[in-house]
This record gives sequence, C-alpha cells and structure tokens, in this order.
Amino acid sequence: METVVNLEAEAEKLQETWSPRVVGRVNDQYVKVAKLQGEFTWHRHEDEDELFLVLRGALTIRYRDRDDVALSAGDVHVVPRGVLHNPMAVEECWIALVETVTTQHTGDTVDPRTRSIAEQLGGG
Amino acid sequence: METVVNLEAEAEKLQETWSPRVVGRVNDQYVKVAKLQGEFTWHRHEDEDELFLVLRGALTIRYRDRDDVALSAGDVHVVPRGVLHNPMAVEECWIALVETVTTQHTGDTVDPRTRSIAEQLGGG
Repeated sequence: METVVNLEAEAEKLQETWSPRVVGRVNDQYVKVAKLQGEFTWHRHEDEDELFLVLRGALTIRYRDRDDVALSAGDVHVVPRGVLHNPMAVEECWIALVETVTTQHTGDTVDPRTRSIAEQLGGG
Repeated sequence: METVVNLEAEAEKLQETWSPRVVGRVNDQYVKVAKLQGEFTWHRHEDEDELFLVLRGALTIRYRDRDDVALSAGDVHVVPRGVLHNPMAVEECWIALVETVTTQHTGDTVDPRTRSIAEQLGGG
C-alpha cells in the first residue's frame, strides 16, 4: 500500500464498474475505491455499516424500508448494518468506501458481479 | 447526525482551527472534519491508526522517525498507531479524519488546544 493515495487517481485506474479495490486501511476498516454505473444488487451487511463518499458524479442509495438517499461529489452517507440497500448511478460515478475488513461485497446475496475480498486486494 | 453530510460544507462551518468535529460514524470509527493552520503538537495514538483526507489546501504530516509526508486535496494518508507525528499546514487546510471512537485528540500529549471527544461531538 502506498503512503499517500489520491482517491480520484486510484478510482481512475479501475477498468471495471462494481469492482472495488482496496487502497488503504485504518484500524479494522478498509478504504476502497470503485466505479459504479447502472444498478447493483439488493443486499445487506448484517453486522457492518458501510460508508460511501462520492468522488465524482452522482449516486443514489435505494432502500426498501426508508427514503432513497441522493449523493453528489463530496457527500458522505453511511448505510447502516442490516439494512437492505442497492446503489444506483445513472452516469458513471466514482466513490470511496470505508468498511470493516471482513465486509463481503454483496453481503448475504450472491451475484455474478460479487468480488471476493482477495480480488479487491488485487489477488486472484 | 444527518443522513448525508458534505465534507467540505461541514468543514466550512468550523470557526476554530485544530478543533475537529464529528460528522459521522461507520462501525467503530468516527468521521471528523477540521481546519488546520500552522503547526500542531507532537503526539502519538498508542493503539490507533488515524486517517487524514485533505479536502482543501495542503498538509504536511511531520514524523520524527521517517520522512515527512506531503498531502494535497484528495490525498489520503494513514498515520500508523504508535508513531510520533505532527500535522503542519502553511496555509489554512481543510481535512477529514477517520479514527477509532476512542482516539484522543492529542494522544498521550496534553496541549492547550486539546479537545475532548465530547467537545468534538458538539457537547461541552
């Protein structure tokens, strides 16, 4: 891991959408970057909150049991543990995430786009 | 805590330098914003890493036992636990921090500018 990482520069390197990459760690949390476009998959992380920071573009976090949350660049929103959610971006959106090192990409849902933590760390 | 917080807008509200304000929480970590100018105080957080994200301006993290780290807007750097450091900004700099909810402002050092966690939460 580099000593200094520029979040937008790290996001820019990503080839694929919906494929987060770990760029740092603080205590028991990974910092990740990702590119998003379109709609992801409904999922929840039973025991873990998930922080979204929008770097570029606009993002909506869709919820089943509460109002959707609209985010623009520089906005932070924390998806609470245990709550069904689905990120959606009409245009390509770049984000940073802060989440526990054990957090599974799509929580308790399996999706063809699910990435393992090893893949997010740059492993196989 | 608001559902959506814009980091720069939260930083802009701050009246004082070196007085972090909690604006969010993800798992066992607080997200804080602060304005910095000048030099702070040498300190360490024995058991806790501290993430710096520069929102505006430029920041140097000075170290005693390694090279200083220079940061610009969008850059992230994690000060490792147990390592003496001192933030320094020639011009006013706005930052976000991610650190464990128990992290003391100036670690094991006491300084007139030390802010309690209650103060950072907006309490007394």
